[in-house]
Amino acid sequence: MSELRFDPIRRRWSIIATERRFRPHEFKRPGPEPPGDVAACPFEYGSEHTTPPEILALSRGPRQPNSPNWQVRVVANKFPALRIEGELIREGVGMFDRVNGIGAHEVIVETPDHMRTTADMTAEEICLVLKAWRERLVDLRRDIRIRYVLLFKNHGRDAGASLYHPHSQLIATPIIPTAVVEELNVARQHWAHKERCIFCDLIQQERALGDRIALETDRFVLIEPFASSFPFETWLLPKQHSHDFAHCADPLLEDLARLVRDFLRRIRELLDDPPYNFILHTAPSPHPRPGQPSYWSTIEYDYHWHIEFIPRITRIAGFEWGSGFAINPTAPEEAARFLREVTLEAGA
Amino acid sequence: MSELRFDPIRRRWSIIATERRFRPHEFKRPGPEPPGDVAACPFEYGSEHTTPPEILALSRGPRQPNSPNWQVRVVANKFPALRIEGELIREGVGMFDRVNGIGAHEVIVETPDHMRTTADMTAEEICLVLKAWRERLVDLRRDIRIRYVLLFKNHGRDAGASLYHPHSQLIATPIIPTAVVEELNVARQHWAHKERCIFCDLIQQERALGDRIALETDRFVLIEPFASSFPFETWLLPKQHSHDFAHCADPLLEDLARLVRDFLRRIRELLDDPPYNFILHTAPSPHPRPGQPSYWSTIEYDYHWHIEFIPRITRIAGFEWGSGFAINPTAPEEAARFLREVTLEAGA
Repeated sequence: MSELRFDPIRRRWSIIATERRFRPHEFKRPGPEPPGDVAACPFEYGSEHTTPPEILALSRGPRQPNSPNWQVRVVANKFPALRIEGELIREGVGMFDRVNGIGAHEVIVETPDHMRTTADMTAEEICLVLKAWRERLVDLRRDIRIRYVLLFKNHGRDAGASLYHPHSQLIATPIIPTAVVEELNVARQHWAHKERCIFCDLIQQERALGDRIALETDRFVLIEPFASSFPFETWLLPKQHSHDFAHCADPLLEDLARLVRDFLRRIRELLDDPPYNFILHTAPSPHPRPGQPSYWSTIEYDYHWHIEFIPRITRIAGFEWGSGFAINPTAPEEAARFLREVTLEAGA
Repeated sequence: MSELRFDPIRRRWSIIATERRFRPHEFKRPGPEPPGDVAACPFEYGSEHTTPPEILALSRGPRQPNSPNWQVRVVANKFPALRIEGELIREGVGMFDRVNGIGAHEVIVETPDHMRTTADMTAEEICLVLKAWRERLVDLRRDIRIRYVLLFKNHGRDAGASLYHPHSQLIATPIIPTAVVEELNVARQHWAHKERCIFCDLIQQERALGDRIALETDRFVLIEPFASSFPFETWLLPKQHSHDFAHCADPLLEDLARLVRDFLRRIRELLDDPPYNFILHTAPSPHPRPGQPSYWSTIEYDYHWHIEFIPRITRIAGFEWGSGFAINPTAPEEAARFLREVTLEAGA
């Protein structure tokens, strides 16, 4: 079984994922080039029996579980970093901390069509994926062992995708990840000082200035962040304050799907279908932490869900690892201008 | 000019490096495969005039600056992320912070021989590189605008090296990078509570257990950290407490060079010359921060310099970015055993 380990010096958790174990020689060469072997892909119609049993499927009409004719299908990851079965055990090991690998690791298959990318999909199809994200989020939060559900998409091998077929993933963890805690704490401190949401403040300032706004609709805004770590790093925020993606009503998801589609097509046009990560930042599970029943009690006011998009076109090197700094060769003001000025083909 | 920007939500600095600016289409394709075009390499004997003027050169006998016959040569980076010229300006911009791009960005050319890697070099040659690191560290700290000097090596394109010729780099920054501050604070808190160095505690615990010790000499120990983020991530620590690499005497550097050579050869053997980052973690410049004259006053006791080695054989994907977690498929106990058991060829 995998385990979560905490480093007291770096104050960082790692999942030591023994289910995914490699021997040294297996690291030596990368896998096959995309799009890979379609016949061997477990996410095609008719290959449903080659995956773990389905957890959720969205389809146009009635169908049997684990059969074709789904539109979006969610299954457990075959090589999970964390597993749902078992009792959660936390223990100290000398100066270290260890938690056994309880959680969930699921794959959201976005379409039955191997060769399409998310940018090729219609807004309706993207909306179905977002609905599957919302449904899995709500469902997993019923498990009180789960403290956070991280939904994300890796597109392209350099962004960490090991399969070509369009898919996103979720990993649910028995602790709130450090990066999430830090962001929640920043938002909470801002609220405590000012009784304003830091993300709402950001949206207001950036809309007033305008030069880092890449796209804007009635309900959403796409911002190239002031201190962006990567060229074309983009934050997608709902304009109306809301702490939790699970609370999004269907019309909001439909609007979001249209914007995501427009944005991904612009990125593809500008950067030639780059590898990217697409990450949902939302509130943690509402279960109180033991001994801290009110720790996130103000979260409805202080946190603001959003999506982070990172094209993986620059390398993270020694300086970045050692300093926590990024070196970004493209100013966000310039990236925003490029994104605004893209001309998409007719019909896009 | 570049600028340093602070993100108040992520609490993270970025260097917006306009000197390294790219247009979108320039991101589209990777550069030439290594070893690249030797004739065009600026680090060959006879090409000294194609680099910025040399800052330091170590040679066997007397020579003219910017001529051949050096053994190690240090020059400014031709496309620097930060520059030494100018006055340091810190300013607030709405809710953001900005510092102009004052600092230094230098390249340490490790050998005149294009085709060798650091693992091919003799211990004497590696020791010369470490001496150049020490000398640049001491020299740059004389500049009171500089708060931290980060010395590192990127080996291989996937680790961020853009030139094949063996080289390391330094970036000197006008603020102490966040990742460094966090580590210094952890060490300081441990000292404040226990009057013991957290790294000395780590060394003691790991030597008592033994299963995460990869290699050990009289003066140094190589540990696979308990919560290692990457397969074969390795920390190299001096056994005797010392906060500052700049204080290393020659015999210690000679011992370190032998160990680094042995370790890099084992890694090359196990992982087939993987890309890697090699990062020095040492104390910040001793200049007091304005208004905080004693902030790092206990650093001699609480901090412990060390080297972090990361092979870049796994990908950092959406989950890692969103959570701050790593997923590591190789347990450190297993990595340590593999490293201990490598058989190096005779003469190694």
